[in-house]
Amino acid sequence: MKADFVNPFISGLLNVLETMAQTTLTPGKPKKKQSDVAKGDVSGLIGMVGPEVRGSLSITFDESLALTIMERMVGERPTSLDAEVADMVGEITNMICGNAKRDLAEKGYEFGMATPVVVSGKQHTISHQVDGPKIILPFICDAGQAHLEICFDQ
Amino acid sequence: MKADFVNPFISGLLNVLETMAQTTLTPGKPKKKQSDVAKGDVSGLIGMVGPEVRGSLSITFDESLALTIMERMVGERPTSLDAEVADMVGEITNMICGNAKRDLAEKGYEFGMATPVVVSGKQHTISHQVDGPKIILPFICDAGQAHLEICFDQ
Repeated sequence: MKADFVNPFISGLLNVLETMAQTTLTPGKPKKKQSDVAKGDVSGLIGMVGPEVRGSLSITFDESLALTIMERMVGERPTSLDAEVADMVGEITNMICGNAKRDLAEKGYEFGMATPVVVSGKQHTISHQVDGPKIILPFICDAGQAHLEICFDQ
Repeated sequence: MKADFVNPFISGLLNVLETMAQTTLTPGKPKKKQSDVAKGDVSGLIGMVGPEVRGSLSITFDESLALTIMERMVGERPTSLDAEVADMVGEITNMICGNAKRDLAEKGYEFGMATPVVVSGKQHTISHQVDGPKIILPFICDAGQAHLEICFDQ
C-alpha cells in the first residue's frame, strides 16, 4: 500500500484526537504481516466501497485510553466502556475515515463510507478479510495504546 | 424497516448455513430497541454503501455454534476460535450480504459491499452507529445461538 494512501488516515487520527481530546499520539512501527493482530478493548470499524477501492478500517483502543479520551472530551471519566464511549469511538472512526476520504478524493481515489460499528469486549482481536494489503499502525500516548488498521482488496 | 428489506438477509443466513454446514437455524422474535445488544464470541461485520442505502450488518455466533459449523464444513472440530474459524465467519458474512444484495437489486435497492471484518473475543458486544432503524434477529439451533443485526441510516 502506498504511503500517500495510508497517510491521510494517520493524519486523520492524529488531528481528531488532538482537536477533540487534546491527546497527542506517537506513531510506532507499522506491521504488515497477515498474521499480526491488534488486541484491544473497544474498536470502531468502518467499511469503504468505491469503484476502485474496497476495504475496511479499524481503530482499536485500550480501555484506559478510551476512558481518558472521553474524560478529556466531556470532563468526566466514565467508569466503564458504556454506550456513550461506544458512540464517541464511532464518531472518531467516522471522522478519521471522512478526513482520509476528502484527501484521497483530491488524489483521484473515490470511495463511499458505510456507517461505523463499535465493538466492546476485553482483549478482542480483529481480522480484516481482504486479499490485498493489510497495515497495522500502533500508536502510544500517556494514557495507553491504539491500533489503526487499514486493509484493501487487490 | 420494511420486511421485504430484511427478509433477503434472513433467507441468506438460513440458506448459507443449511447449504454449507447442514445446520438449520430457527428464527426467534426480532428486537428493535436501540438499547438491545447482541453478545457473542465471534462476529462477522460488513458495511453497505449505495446511493440510497448506507448501513452495516453483523452476524454474531456463540463459540459452540461457530465451532460446530466449522466441524460440519471441514470434518474436524477446531479447539478454539482460530484464524480458520475467523475466515469461515468472514465468508459466511460475505455470502449473507451478497445474497441480500442480489435480491434487493432486483427490487431497485442498489448498494456496494465493503470487505468483511471478523471480531473474536469472549462475550463482546456490537453497537451499530446509525441514526435509522436497527433490527436484531436471534436464531437458535442444537449447537447454540446466533444474532443477525441489520442497521441503516435514515
